[in-house]
Amino acid sequence: MKPLSLTPGDTATHTPLIEAELKQFFTEKGRRAAASGPLFEHMWHIASVRMLGGKFVRPRLFLESLEALRGERVTAADASALRLATALELLHFSFLLHDDVIDGDLTRRGEPNFIAQLAEISPDVDDPVPPREADVERRSHFARSCAILLGDLLLADVHQIFAGVHAPEHTRTRLLGVLERTVTDSVIGEQLDVALSDRIISPDLATTLQMCARKTATYTFELPLRVAAAHAGANPDLELLLAHVGQHLGLAFQLQDDLLSAFGDPSQHGKDPFSDLREGKETAVIAHARMTSAWPAIEESFGDPQLTHAEGARVRDLLVQCGAKEFTEALIDDQLRALHELLADHRGTIPAPLTVVVSRLSSRLQGRAA
Amino acid sequence: MKPLSLTPGDTATHTPLIEAELKQFFTEKGRRAAASGPLFEHMWHIASVRMLGGKFVRPRLFLESLEALRGERVTAADASALRLATALELLHFSFLLHDDVIDGDLTRRGEPNFIAQLAEISPDVDDPVPPREADVERRSHFARSCAILLGDLLLADVHQIFAGVHAPEHTRTRLLGVLERTVTDSVIGEQLDVALSDRIISPDLATTLQMCARKTATYTFELPLRVAAAHAGANPDLELLLAHVGQHLGLAFQLQDDLLSAFGDPSQHGKDPFSDLREGKETAVIAHARMTSAWPAIEESFGDPQLTHAEGARVRDLLVQCGAKEFTEALIDDQLRALHELLADHRGTIPAPLTVVVSRLSSRLQGRAA
Repeated sequence: MKPLSLTPGDTATHTPLIEAELKQFFTEKGRRAAASGPLFEHMWHIASVRMLGGKFVRPRLFLESLEALRGERVTAADASALRLATALELLHFSFLLHDDVIDGDLTRRGEPNFIAQLAEISPDVDDPVPPREADVERRSHFARSCAILLGDLLLADVHQIFAGVHAPEHTRTRLLGVLERTVTDSVIGEQLDVALSDRIISPDLATTLQMCARKTATYTFELPLRVAAAHAGANPDLELLLAHVGQHLGLAFQLQDDLLSAFGDPSQHGKDPFSDLREGKETAVIAHARMTSAWPAIEESFGDPQLTHAEGARVRDLLVQCGAKEFTEALIDDQLRALHELLADHRGTIPAPLTVVVSRLSSRLQGRAA
Repeated sequence: MKPLSLTPGDTATHTPLIEAELKQFFTEKGRRAAASGPLFEHMWHIASVRMLGGKFVRPRLFLESLEALRGERVTAADASALRLATALELLHFSFLLHDDVIDGDLTRRGEPNFIAQLAEISPDVDDPVPPREADVERRSHFARSCAILLGDLLLADVHQIFAGVHAPEHTRTRLLGVLERTVTDSVIGEQLDVALSDRIISPDLATTLQMCARKTATYTFELPLRVAAAHAGANPDLELLLAHVGQHLGLAFQLQDDLLSAFGDPSQHGKDPFSDLREGKETAVIAHARMTSAWPAIEESFGDPQLTHAEGARVRDLLVQCGAKEFTEALIDDQLRALHELLADHRGTIPAPLTVVVSRLSSRLQGRAA
């Protein structure tokens, strides 16, 4: 999963609320963890440092949408809303942890990720391990295992928060139903992603798009919108509309992310310009290229971990020439057009302030260079 | 986590109820999964085959305890109780999946586990992968990743079942609280286990016992007893007493499991008689041996994957001579004595039928050879 690089809009006031709530969550976890020994405490400490540096895209979208739906600012007194906002961030981090274990990744947003930090920094224990190679592997195994275990704990916490929301029973049931569908969909998307990179299934365009939609769009865009609708007690029809809105936004976002990784300006997005090619990542760009006569020449370098800058530039040119760039841009336009048609067609159903939130997100998305 | 080898007592009637409920769970999952493609459906299919072959130790203990507490047989009409029983088995399987990923295990109870089965049997997809070595590694990576993802789904399902129990809100809150403590404790225990085997922490007796208690006792014995108490609306004091009962039973069980692995008759327990030694597993037996003068001679062979039968037999003799066997037997006796004192001291609080359930389990445990 790629980090979201949408810059904050005029919702800067939500960030401190989310931060404060997350800090409170980690303070409580740290307090309880301290009683269970330094290893457990240290794991929570690293997690809190990693998480508090996030952009809170999902909780912010939720709080913005909630405000738009109920026409009232969220304040520090909205305990349930802030707990749910926290849960959305915890779910994201839980998925990232397991994703990093699955992909064997050690960095995230260009920094050492949870696994790398835990493997590196030895907690204050009786028997510090000297840095021999076998010890490095053992420490790395320990850190990967902790990422699985912490992912489990956070997933459990998300469910506890949803189940413990102070709301009428039908609202809680509705919230838990949305969570269930989201977790299932994200797992299906992640499974498709792994199956594509392990070449268990064919990398056709339909599968690649389904993977993007399920793995990222559902929990990043659809979930915050639906949770806002359910928590605000909105009509189920409106919730379903917002699910579609979230799918269009999410797919457009993911496609643009792939496009930026392949063709964007590295000085702006800050990523290795050819990392997707080196990893052999199956994206819509690649799925289209596979169907053209340029593919054999691209395939030579696709998935080559030693890809040079010159080879990378050659492949990028081929991807432009074969129409894969244009094709993906058209797919994004399709999604955004469908989104705006949806908003226009349901002007009466979707409250105007929510249309503003979604449109703002969509235009930030269109202008995005990083 | 070791498989429990307690043979069923007179609770044979619960097994068909649990099986029927689990089958229904998997039928529903399979039906929904079918709509999400063959990969996802295949994963659920393998999971159902693995899970339906289980012994249902945890759901059975829960149903027996529930009957004892409310003085009424559980029937197919007890939807909530049977759902909770299913959840206890799902939680167990979720932990096993992540445990197998962490330990790199491919067998369970002497059979190919979920990972091995998924890696081997190719689902019906467009592009079957030929069996080259790189492909075997890719398929194995895919299967391990699926074990992480399915473990996540099952953990989510457990929480959904607890959160959706038809019971008064205070009962549901109580059940969710027990679940939260259990998941946290199991993660702490598993983290200690990994930290011990990766030599991140010192393998002293106290840590080893804490690991056993948290990793196995909590979710296998304490959880079913507490869930029964909470679901039956028992007094919180009784629930706390049962938590202690579960801890004693669980620790005695785990210690005996380690003892059987080291000194038991392989023709009865069916396990490789020296696998714990080959793996370098930190048990109470080993923790005691470390404190004796026999340790340097044992250490030579401890954790040697190529350990021969002759060397294994030599180490086993040393473990007997240094008193580690006797010491561990005494630890088990301590736990069972404490258990029976607890039962005797609270004769008035713990209902007599529940004392029967616990005593029966404790005597099965004492006579256990496999």
